[in-house]
Amino acid sequence: MKTAKKKIKASILIIGNEILSGRTQDLNVSFISNWLNNNCGIIVEEVRIIPDKEKKIIFNVLDLSKKFNYVFTTGGIGPTHDDITSLSVAKAFKLKYEYNEEAYSILEKYYGKNNFNIGRKKMAKMPSGSSLIYNPSSAAPGFKIRNILCLPGVPSILKSMIHNLKKYLIKGKKVIEKNISLYTVESNISIELENIQNKYSKKVDIGSYPFFRLGKVGVSIVLRSVEKFSLVKCYNEITNMVKLKKIRIFK
Amino acid sequence: MKTAKKKIKASILIIGNEILSGRTQDLNVSFISNWLNNNCGIIVEEVRIIPDKEKKIIFNVLDLSKKFNYVFTTGGIGPTHDDITSLSVAKAFKLKYEYNEEAYSILEKYYGKNNFNIGRKKMAKMPSGSSLIYNPSSAAPGFKIRNILCLPGVPSILKSMIHNLKKYLIKGKKVIEKNISLYTVESNISIELENIQNKYSKKVDIGSYPFFRLGKVGVSIVLRSVEKFSLVKCYNEITNMVKLKKIRIFK
Repeated sequence: MKTAKKKIKASILIIGNEILSGRTQDLNVSFISNWLNNNCGIIVEEVRIIPDKEKKIIFNVLDLSKKFNYVFTTGGIGPTHDDITSLSVAKAFKLKYEYNEEAYSILEKYYGKNNFNIGRKKMAKMPSGSSLIYNPSSAAPGFKIRNILCLPGVPSILKSMIHNLKKYLIKGKKVIEKNISLYTVESNISIELENIQNKYSKKVDIGSYPFFRLGKVGVSIVLRSVEKFSLVKCYNEITNMVKLKKIRIFK
Repeated sequence: MKTAKKKIKASILIIGNEILSGRTQDLNVSFISNWLNNNCGIIVEEVRIIPDKEKKIIFNVLDLSKKFNYVFTTGGIGPTHDDITSLSVAKAFKLKYEYNEEAYSILEKYYGKNNFNIGRKKMAKMPSGSSLIYNPSSAAPGFKIRNILCLPGVPSILKSMIHNLKKYLIKGKKVIEKNISLYTVESNISIELENIQNKYSKKVDIGSYPFFRLGKVGVSIVLRSVEKFSLVKCYNEITNMVKLKKIRIFK
């Protein structure tokens, strides 16, 4: 993987009525986002969840592809009528939607010539010029075209193939995180935290998240930065503030 | 609640770095979407997840408010520096960001005059002209301004106050669902399903979702429609097809 000097920004486009309707709980956003940051230093800055509708897919693929270095889509690359991601991406870029020879031969081998029916063949159709993202668990590959990388919706299959994305990505700077959980409420530390945030405004992002754990109320302070030095300095300021205010740390 | 004859469409705007980074698993999308459909016949057609950045919040609030009947936001209405939803929504509509008198008095009563510090007072600040969404679990209210309804990010608090949204919403037609799970693979039924979908193209949405359960591979067919008659008719066609193909039903 090549490494870029600047921040590499990505978006995720979740395609699927079942996620929007609330029938299925999405698990792919948190997995992809963590994986991209930890393995590639790529930061997810926007997620959209849209229905299986061609117009919506085309609009969002084009819109996000202009705004971000990479767009990762999930869902809609299977064999049934509601799987329209590949066709829609082809239409978005005015490319032919056709059999990818390599994908065709992978799938034909996987199913056997006699069982390679129309539904299965459909999974070899993609925008002309696509590169494959291999799938070790169920053969049907994802694909990359322009800066769009199309993955399946089933979390276990997606997980099994995510490492095969690496060769298509330029590495950015990894965001590192430190956090501290406190026995307090947010409003007790809001002014002090704001002052520290202002001091590190360009270097460290400080998030504050209330929680309920083991019957206790607390606050998790999460620091994120691409610079370790600033992160540690900022973290130390927060722990000093916590000591001064005699707040107990949640271990 | 009033009832509209046409479809009422909504979007959800999740505001929070912790969701985008994958640190926190979002649970609000599926809860809100199910609740809106079951209780109000309102259909969620798009979700966006964005960071705690003023420009992004303003852009998305304005963009979604034009495209949908309602926009539900979650997150960013707490007492700390990273809670900037209320201010950003005010800026989006060029409204004053000021103390809401009712919210101020609710919070002052809840915390007591002596403990009503600046962080806590901040939670009473909102766009001028907002109506409150009462919060029975931790007092700090959400608010409605124009067609934007702002809710907190903590799922348990959000759940406790969601019923207080009802008075602000016009009811649409509820989507009803029927589903059937089969011992088969998608590619075995893809042509038959497509034919049935084409027949009911305007009336019923048929989704097909592969699953792995108890070591078995299967497919869930999910039918969704606002018309019960078409839904049942379409469902019967699918069960007939399943019988004809001698596919076992997963109970």
